[in-house]
Amino acid sequence: MMTSSSSLHLIFILFTIFTVITTTTTTVKSLPIPFATTPQQSLLQKHTNKHLKPSSTLPFTTHYFPQLLDHFTFTPNSSKIFYQKYLLNSTFFSSSSSSPIFVYTGNEGNIEWFASNSGFIFDIAPKFNALLLFIEHRFYGDSLPFGNDSYSSAETLGYLTSTQALADYAQLIRSLKHNLSAEASPVIVFGGSYGGMLAAWFRLKYPHVAIGALASSAPILQFDDIVPWSSFYDGVSQDYKDESMNCFEVIKGSWDELLALSLKKNGLQKIGKIFRSCKKLQSVEPVKHWLWTAFASTAMVDYPTPANFMADLPAYPVKEMCRAIDGFPARVSKLPKVFAAASIYYNYSGTEKCFDFESGSNPHGLHGWAWQACTEMVMPLTCSNESMFPPSGYDYKNASAGCEFKYGVQSRPHWITTEYGGYRIGEVLKRFGSNIIFSNGLRDPWSRGGVIKNISPSIVALVTKKGAHHLDFRSGTKNDPKWLIEQRRKEVEIMQGWIRQYHEDMKD
Amino acid sequence: MMTSSSSLHLIFILFTIFTVITTTTTTVKSLPIPFATTPQQSLLQKHTNKHLKPSSTLPFTTHYFPQLLDHFTFTPNSSKIFYQKYLLNSTFFSSSSSSPIFVYTGNEGNIEWFASNSGFIFDIAPKFNALLLFIEHRFYGDSLPFGNDSYSSAETLGYLTSTQALADYAQLIRSLKHNLSAEASPVIVFGGSYGGMLAAWFRLKYPHVAIGALASSAPILQFDDIVPWSSFYDGVSQDYKDESMNCFEVIKGSWDELLALSLKKNGLQKIGKIFRSCKKLQSVEPVKHWLWTAFASTAMVDYPTPANFMADLPAYPVKEMCRAIDGFPARVSKLPKVFAAASIYYNYSGTEKCFDFESGSNPHGLHGWAWQACTEMVMPLTCSNESMFPPSGYDYKNASAGCEFKYGVQSRPHWITTEYGGYRIGEVLKRFGSNIIFSNGLRDPWSRGGVIKNISPSIVALVTKKGAHHLDFRSGTKNDPKWLIEQRRKEVEIMQGWIRQYHEDMKD
Repeated sequence: MMTSSSSLHLIFILFTIFTVITTTTTTVKSLPIPFATTPQQSLLQKHTNKHLKPSSTLPFTTHYFPQLLDHFTFTPNSSKIFYQKYLLNSTFFSSSSSSPIFVYTGNEGNIEWFASNSGFIFDIAPKFNALLLFIEHRFYGDSLPFGNDSYSSAETLGYLTSTQALADYAQLIRSLKHNLSAEASPVIVFGGSYGGMLAAWFRLKYPHVAIGALASSAPILQFDDIVPWSSFYDGVSQDYKDESMNCFEVIKGSWDELLALSLKKNGLQKIGKIFRSCKKLQSVEPVKHWLWTAFASTAMVDYPTPANFMADLPAYPVKEMCRAIDGFPARVSKLPKVFAAASIYYNYSGTEKCFDFESGSNPHGLHGWAWQACTEMVMPLTCSNESMFPPSGYDYKNASAGCEFKYGVQSRPHWITTEYGGYRIGEVLKRFGSNIIFSNGLRDPWSRGGVIKNISPSIVALVTKKGAHHLDFRSGTKNDPKWLIEQRRKEVEIMQGWIRQYHEDMKD
Repeated sequence: MMTSSSSLHLIFILFTIFTVITTTTTTVKSLPIPFATTPQQSLLQKHTNKHLKPSSTLPFTTHYFPQLLDHFTFTPNSSKIFYQKYLLNSTFFSSSSSSPIFVYTGNEGNIEWFASNSGFIFDIAPKFNALLLFIEHRFYGDSLPFGNDSYSSAETLGYLTSTQALADYAQLIRSLKHNLSAEASPVIVFGGSYGGMLAAWFRLKYPHVAIGALASSAPILQFDDIVPWSSFYDGVSQDYKDESMNCFEVIKGSWDELLALSLKKNGLQKIGKIFRSCKKLQSVEPVKHWLWTAFASTAMVDYPTPANFMADLPAYPVKEMCRAIDGFPARVSKLPKVFAAASIYYNYSGTEKCFDFESGSNPHGLHGWAWQACTEMVMPLTCSNESMFPPSGYDYKNASAGCEFKYGVQSRPHWITTEYGGYRIGEVLKRFGSNIIFSNGLRDPWSRGGVIKNISPSIVALVTKKGAHHLDFRSGTKNDPKWLIEQRRKEVEIMQGWIRQYHEDMKD
């Protein structure tokens, strides 16, 4: 039995709250979390999830850094110390030769999970003689500032912010370099998705700590109204439309069919049968969410090779989904078609006999990103009439009321663009900053909120037409397409240039 | 009667604490506050100090912005709103023509005082059609987040940090531009001394808000061990040595003479007579501090024209002090000589009949910078054997213990360089960032902690050999020397270039 506790689970939780407390006709959705997992999953994965190699088999030593709770105030609470987890691999490194330190700026999950899904960084480490450092983001994994009480209220969760996380990284890196007598080693930060945002922002805010950043699939423009709010789901829809118009139309039409059936006598029972529900369905909503998640997540991880990042999936899984849909005769109802498609996401191995649509909630872990999305990482996402999802809007007031209802704090929806910028990023960074690679794959719907044009000679966009969510960070395989090999080659070449330049500048 | 409540007063307060609690032979000094006033003075000045034109005569309108207490956490306390004062002059501005906004990033005092001592910004406003905006720093002047309780404990003072102040400026500027429909107007930030640090850091941290910064006399390298700890007092000493070796030697020898006399029978009484004390002296320390302040402060404001920034002073006041010292026959004791010199600082008008060495304390105002110096703005300052001051060392542990004793919080002496950098600034900023002018006058001892070499084509140092502490920010006078006129002309020319470039980039 596989639960529906998947990447987009957060949507549903907030969605439920918002639909309860709002009376307008617009529905309010929270974002699919960029890294396409729930922190809860990540927490569980440490020992049980098949997607993650256990820490002991990862080529790392595990350490804990005494980290300051609040870098930006000196109230008595602020000086509390918590232990931040980080992973080290020094196999290839020699501090005496000033070889580089590659730092992964952890995002919303346990750090082992990111380490085990960033094989690219391992692949290139020998070429650079690089020290590898993966730092866990505060409030995720084992880096819980208040232990089991970390998620208990805004009093504790209040310290879960991106600015604090960046300062954590600066403190830890500086301390580690000092302890390793590696002051002269240049640091390059890496990150994917939210971790990619952090990497890019880290280079911008802490240029004295990191000489460059490789930010993969980082939707740093997905805030305020920099890009259209509908861009994410338009992007998802385009992926399916690109495979086949029928596939797109079936999915688009399935929501109404699902709703209509649910309102009929014994409708829920029929739906339960079509979707192989393990338990009697109480509502159609969980099924809707289950489908929604499958389509959106699969678009994100539409990788050209089999992968098991979010789920065990074949190469080009969107194509596989559409093949499943298109394989049915036209006259058949849409519901078995979308069930077959979603089963590729949830049950590619074919071992699941039924699905539990209502389980999978773990408030502890889920709170992490849900909290961040509520407070500062506010990314309005809507579904336009042209998308394959039911149309929906976004309303700041409703969203904020939902956060206040849930956590008792007000969201600050414009803070990210105040703190990190984003508007007219080309003009702002054309003559400011340097050494950032924004890598994106256009199959990834998040790429629509990313930087996909070169900004300056050293702030560049590496875009692949057929790439997906931080595909470049995955381990190389013998089946990798040429365009992916080329993207990674360019990344290596550019970073080699940064390091060469650094050493030349230091000679002056 | 004039009190000893002058620019370096902070030294004395902390000095007293540290000498009480430390048993080592090194004495620990806090820094002279860069802007050479006590916040207390600033607060008083609002209505009573002759150095400051009252607000009503300044060409400003006064406003208050609802500001967030804590930008970097979402704890329930963080959302508290306080009212931040700012001054506006829109005489020359037209938002429709996208003319620039000149923002003064307020430092440790009431904002009217900075406005009235930054005549340069007024002088050049018409040429740029600039809007003038002077923002008061949180916890100074009227911008007290907890009203009269703002200084009551670390619970409230904890929010007085430079990072919060920078975020305040970003929030306020963004909001104001929006409200004035001046989104297209480029912002240039200005600041002197600590305000200059804030301006430079603001450009580095918020390039999307400000297109450039003019940072005058900003000792951003006076942290950790980037520059020698003795540099400030070596700089002061050099100023006097440059005038006359006798002057330097008299001051250098006066401390021992003062101490020796104080230990003799009726010594304090004699000292009281020489120094025209209004009251019976209880200790020699206040007299020592009084002299110390006069010599250090006068070096900072060794302006080429008469000025009344920190005190009513003649042109080139260090020269005047040394003239007073050198005017005595050599055989005369050193104490009347240094009294005569210090009287130029405290009593140039000649109206003071006696001096009150022990008064002038206002814990409320003083706490502002004393708190900042204790917590994050930790600038170790020592006196070397070669200086004209009694040798003294610095010890992080003692300093931190003093802060803990006073406020109950631990200092974070390496935080500023972690957050803002400073080490190898030339290499770091050579290829990162743009559009910063660091202006310095080498007579100002703080210039030794400033950036005095060009870093890149657009991060430049404008240095004058004979200039003093943010001299360039003062109103132009008909007696200004050519080198000062030239420094200001270059500043204008460079800023015109930034604005031209900005408009060109926006056309793309």
